[in-house]
Amino acid sequence: MYRALFKSPIASKRMSTSSAAAVSAATPVSAKKPTTVQPQWYPQEASESPVLKVYNSLTRTKTEFVPIVPNHITWYSCGPTVYTHSHMGHARNYVSTDINRRLLQDYFGYNVKFIQNVTDIDDKIIIAARHQHLYEQEVTTKFKSVDAELLKLAEDALVEYVNKNLPQFTGKDIKQEFGNWTKTVNVQEQAVTIPKFPMYVKAANDAHSAITTPNIPLEEFFTKVQDVTMPFLDKTLGSGINDPSIFRKLPSFWENNFNEDMAKLNVLPSSITTRVSEYIPDIITYVEKIIANGYAYATNDGSVYFDTAKFENSSNHDYAKLQPWNKGDMSLINDGEGSLTTGQETKKNAADFALWKTSKPGEPEWTSPWGQGRPGWHIECSVMASDTAGECMDIHSGGVDLCFPHHDNELAQSEAYYDNKQWVNYFLHNGHLHIQGQKMSKSLKNFITIQEALDSYSPRQLRLVFAMNAWEKTIDFKDSFIKEVKALESTFSKFFTTVRALNNDNKHSISEGEYISKRLGPVEKQLYDDLATAQTDVHAAFCDNLSTYQALRSMQELVSKSNNYIQATSTSNQNELRIEPLLEVVRWISKILNILGFEVRSDNLGWSDSSSSSSNQGGASTEDIAMPYVKALSQFRDSVRNLAINKEDYSKILAATDLLRSDLIKLGISLDDRPNNLPALVKFLNPQEQEELINQQAEKEKLALEKQKKKEQAALANAQKEKERLEKMKINPVDMFKDSSLYSEWDEEGLPLKDIKGEEVSKSMRKKLTKQQQQQQKQYQEYLKSIE
Amino acid sequence: MYRALFKSPIASKRMSTSSAAAVSAATPVSAKKPTTVQPQWYPQEASESPVLKVYNSLTRTKTEFVPIVPNHITWYSCGPTVYTHSHMGHARNYVSTDINRRLLQDYFGYNVKFIQNVTDIDDKIIIAARHQHLYEQEVTTKFKSVDAELLKLAEDALVEYVNKNLPQFTGKDIKQEFGNWTKTVNVQEQAVTIPKFPMYVKAANDAHSAITTPNIPLEEFFTKVQDVTMPFLDKTLGSGINDPSIFRKLPSFWENNFNEDMAKLNVLPSSITTRVSEYIPDIITYVEKIIANGYAYATNDGSVYFDTAKFENSSNHDYAKLQPWNKGDMSLINDGEGSLTTGQETKKNAADFALWKTSKPGEPEWTSPWGQGRPGWHIECSVMASDTAGECMDIHSGGVDLCFPHHDNELAQSEAYYDNKQWVNYFLHNGHLHIQGQKMSKSLKNFITIQEALDSYSPRQLRLVFAMNAWEKTIDFKDSFIKEVKALESTFSKFFTTVRALNNDNKHSISEGEYISKRLGPVEKQLYDDLATAQTDVHAAFCDNLSTYQALRSMQELVSKSNNYIQATSTSNQNELRIEPLLEVVRWISKILNILGFEVRSDNLGWSDSSSSSSNQGGASTEDIAMPYVKALSQFRDSVRNLAINKEDYSKILAATDLLRSDLIKLGISLDDRPNNLPALVKFLNPQEQEELINQQAEKEKLALEKQKKKEQAALANAQKEKERLEKMKINPVDMFKDSSLYSEWDEEGLPLKDIKGEEVSKSMRKKLTKQQQQQQKQYQEYLKSIE
Repeated sequence: MYRALFKSPIASKRMSTSSAAAVSAATPVSAKKPTTVQPQWYPQEASESPVLKVYNSLTRTKTEFVPIVPNHITWYSCGPTVYTHSHMGHARNYVSTDINRRLLQDYFGYNVKFIQNVTDIDDKIIIAARHQHLYEQEVTTKFKSVDAELLKLAEDALVEYVNKNLPQFTGKDIKQEFGNWTKTVNVQEQAVTIPKFPMYVKAANDAHSAITTPNIPLEEFFTKVQDVTMPFLDKTLGSGINDPSIFRKLPSFWENNFNEDMAKLNVLPSSITTRVSEYIPDIITYVEKIIANGYAYATNDGSVYFDTAKFENSSNHDYAKLQPWNKGDMSLINDGEGSLTTGQETKKNAADFALWKTSKPGEPEWTSPWGQGRPGWHIECSVMASDTAGECMDIHSGGVDLCFPHHDNELAQSEAYYDNKQWVNYFLHNGHLHIQGQKMSKSLKNFITIQEALDSYSPRQLRLVFAMNAWEKTIDFKDSFIKEVKALESTFSKFFTTVRALNNDNKHSISEGEYISKRLGPVEKQLYDDLATAQTDVHAAFCDNLSTYQALRSMQELVSKSNNYIQATSTSNQNELRIEPLLEVVRWISKILNILGFEVRSDNLGWSDSSSSSSNQGGASTEDIAMPYVKALSQFRDSVRNLAINKEDYSKILAATDLLRSDLIKLGISLDDRPNNLPALVKFLNPQEQEELINQQAEKEKLALEKQKKKEQAALANAQKEKERLEKMKINPVDMFKDSSLYSEWDEEGLPLKDIKGEEVSKSMRKKLTKQQQQQQKQYQEYLKSIE
Repeated sequence: MYRALFKSPIASKRMSTSSAAAVSAATPVSAKKPTTVQPQWYPQEASESPVLKVYNSLTRTKTEFVPIVPNHITWYSCGPTVYTHSHMGHARNYVSTDINRRLLQDYFGYNVKFIQNVTDIDDKIIIAARHQHLYEQEVTTKFKSVDAELLKLAEDALVEYVNKNLPQFTGKDIKQEFGNWTKTVNVQEQAVTIPKFPMYVKAANDAHSAITTPNIPLEEFFTKVQDVTMPFLDKTLGSGINDPSIFRKLPSFWENNFNEDMAKLNVLPSSITTRVSEYIPDIITYVEKIIANGYAYATNDGSVYFDTAKFENSSNHDYAKLQPWNKGDMSLINDGEGSLTTGQETKKNAADFALWKTSKPGEPEWTSPWGQGRPGWHIECSVMASDTAGECMDIHSGGVDLCFPHHDNELAQSEAYYDNKQWVNYFLHNGHLHIQGQKMSKSLKNFITIQEALDSYSPRQLRLVFAMNAWEKTIDFKDSFIKEVKALESTFSKFFTTVRALNNDNKHSISEGEYISKRLGPVEKQLYDDLATAQTDVHAAFCDNLSTYQALRSMQELVSKSNNYIQATSTSNQNELRIEPLLEVVRWISKILNILGFEVRSDNLGWSDSSSSSSNQGGASTEDIAMPYVKALSQFRDSVRNLAINKEDYSKILAATDLLRSDLIKLGISLDDRPNNLPALVKFLNPQEQEELINQQAEKEKLALEKQKKKEQAALANAQKEKERLEKMKINPVDMFKDSSLYSEWDEEGLPLKDIKGEEVSKSMRKKLTKQQQQQQKQYQEYLKSIE
């Protein structure tokens, strides 16, 4: 596959830069040079090669990636708002980002300064912190049993909750009729028009069941009435909360929880983490500068808004670069402003958004030139990113749902602050995650937390799910796709296991002094060519918008070709297997998998199996690890020894070797007996392969049992037949036809003369009966002999 | 440190390739666009950045590296000639090559196909194999003590050795005077003019001391006289050796030994390994084509030579591209031809070199069109490299001492074969290794094997020694430099340990619910800038001829700055330490160290400490640990299975169980068989217990051997007795007393009448003699019967 250098004429005979070579180059080639000077050297011409392109949301095309400073990338990633469990949508976003980051860093070799923020000041956090605090203070630490006061509180809360959120319920007495009503409504159908309907029904239903059967354990009661009681308490008591530590404790807990989830998913830690709560003075200064630049204004109520019209009408700037078609979409704009925002009527323009929000009682607040308040959501990212990445960054990334208004506002703010044209060069947006074809949402109850996902899937499987999709497209986390991912995982695992086993076999043979040929034949050379093709394909895939899916498919193909090679050499006597090309394939695949964030073994021969299970082999000693195998060995030796001492049948010894084989499978070892006196091939199985073999064995045992049963039944039937035969033998031939229902007269030998009707037995019939009697005579004689 | 994008005017406002952007770009910026179209995006202009250059021996300059196929490198590395221990010179060559390979592969991201040969046919190997074989056959397995015959052999060998190699010794009686003479000569002084002088003196001195004090243990005697005796034996018996397996056994053993050494030094295995012995038919075909192309000729004695004059005079070709100034240096040329080469007088030109050499008796031989012979040294590499890398390769590497004639001849052969102009684009030659300022050589006795080096230094230290030098320059392995390397190692180690400790402290505080600020101040930002500077410097260093030394110095500086930061934050109350920049620094340094082939922790927080000691339990997987036990188990099962299938005797099965028991002791396991059908007790032994058991076993084997020996001696004595008895039987009783030294007169029956003095034989004596004669009569009768 390598292009021969001298097939085509060399276009420009560039000279070597060495002075010696320069001298020689001046001499014609045919004239011989003095021997103290090296002859001409021909430099290699560079060939075309793919360049890295990424899908940039700012152009909605794949654009060539050019960093601001060669070899360096500054990257700001929109981090989590920390107030509850992270879910699969987060996993998708952060693992896909992690894969992209690792590719730029470890495949393309950039030095990536990866900045990610933690949003720890936000309306959602304020509400969650107040709810959590009030529920602890007013319920869980207050009541020691479900007493009348607690029941009353829960009932009042339920009534208010239903009236507010479920006006569809027209019954009068909630306690009496609500349960029946929920049984009659089609929740899924209603959800189409009322998005949060299922969530409301679930919360109210839980509370209703607790109130109507209050004898459940206290903790359970607390849990069931929590969702309806928290907003009820917040309504009356929320505004009284002013201890800042309450608003710090909750996000701090969930930030830590998020980091733990990310570590489990093997997401690389950020180079720099920024927290909004540590940036308040900077935010105030930043907002002041935007005002000074003319792109923001303060209102009487102590808020500051960004002046979208002013910004857009400036010749230097564009507003909503990412999604200009969403400008003025009030639903998106209001959602971006947060549920606690008030005083919006003071804005100059409906599209303007808050940089600084005045705080109401029960909301955290900081002193500013505009009064007590707190930052708006979008400004937080502008300030933190500007502080750490400066006035222009290479990459900004985040979930696709953040394009408008969050990222568009962020761009506007920062470009207003620096008064520059382009704050971000490449904006990468990760696609959505769907669950079984549906959008995942808390309200649809198909919400899966990362912890729940990790109960069902290994971190490796989850990462494979994301890597098997384009990062910018929607992923559907559905059963058929998960099956496909598991099959791919199994293909890789089995291949790694086999090659390691073959390698161990090879090493062992060499240590025994066997001569193992290394000479490559055409099939091995083909395998090296296949490897080179896969390497070229994978490079092209990564250059084409970091297409991990394409890359994994190329690697899968290479595995399939390698397996064909193994198969061909194990069935043919002509081609002996060569281990080197297989090791080279495994090492390269492992290297790429490692770059994609899959943990691999330190010898680079496949992924490490610790990541597939939660059990960590950490500090186990050699003895602990080796003991089960040594035990099996010793027991086997004992049994063989005893069999040999007692000179038992050889079949029993062979049976012992079979038993050992099946015992070893339980220890994760498979011994594959091979023909031609080859020693058994030893394989260390991964858990999946082990399970498969155990199942196969169970199936085999089941079949053997059925066979055994059939055999026993047949034996029983035979015994019955034999018994009947023996009974028949005992009959004296003289008596054998004395059946008065058939015949009426017999001769002295017992042969029938007339039938029951008195008619003579025909001649032919008599002949037949005589023959039968003679046969019985023989049997009877035998019988008489046997009883003598 | 990042260049601001909009400070300087953008030279050419390239348009985004998206159609939407193209539309918007056509509109003047001031006129507002329809909101369904994204505004203009400004692509980043690429800046200048260093490119990779390597020192190419073909130009003796640093030349830009351009591969033949983008992203791929084909690389042929001159591998070992396997006939003895690998030494520090090899370590230097192969570790430096490994570092370069890893940089191109893991830093610059090339897919490297790395081919390395094993030279297992070579004059040095032939001699070593014959020596080894003859010494075993004629000395170590033959003599059981230092008897007269052995002493005579050693003395004769010493005389010849001294006469041949040390004519400076003028004393007549070597046994008497040699010892005194060696005490008087200044060996180091003589070595200046006679290079191998110290080696000769040492060998002769050893033999002399053994011969003059032969009461030393036998093994010691063997060792001391070996160097003088082997060539002595070879001279008389060498030509009788013709078993090909003798010439295969030795290189096969040392090939394996070389691979073990490389694994210890963490040198990556080759993609492809080629052995000369597997290429004989290819070599013959290759030589035929060179002859056909007109650049080689066969001579009458069955050799083939390369026609250097013809090649050089061809307009297409240049001979000795690497070192044209060495053309015609007969000392180098003869050294390249090998010490067993003869018939050179048949060459057309003194500079011509052998492609195929006729084999003399005692040398391995293959059938060729030119008669029985073997390949020349240089052609081997041309053929193996052509087979695996083709008609043009990117990189060829080897030790600098191979430039001329080996690599120059290799180039000439391959360019003659392909009739092309440039077979190798980049020729990389690793520099020499000196020990304490002197060239390392066997003759100077400053020769250090890799195994010896590993007794004193860790693999990490050795790699650091090589990485702290330019790969193409001479390294002086001297005490002051080793001290410097150890200091650098310690600097890194301490830094890693400190940062890990700080990180653990930080994690602990977070889990305790403490609020640890992440906000960066100016000192932390400076540290990130220092990191970026180091990254830029390291990139520049690697681009500049893979200068690992410069890179390590940049990293050392960064460590020093980081330590200053740690120091500053621990002594000041104003600046609290931030862990993130430190972790980022450690992760990056670990990544680069890992690329250079140092083993690092899986969390990337520093190098792994297992590599500092020779015991490597560190990253060992369950599989690695359990494998030897499982292998033993599987082999035992194989053998039992075969014995049972073939219905072999039960004693053989029991013998297999005993063999397993002794094999397991080598793995540190003892199986104690117990009575009463109790299973064997499994013990994991500590090293001391293991040694004891091994000694016990050796003692047992020794006793068994002695018993066997005694038995054999007794049998011999019996046989002698029987022989004597049989001789005595043959004597006729009439003649049995016919001893004229005892008697002077006999009767007709042969009974003595008078003794020698003439006195009559006494009556009692006559009676005794008569009885003896009667007994002999019986024996004699028996004898007569037996011969009938």
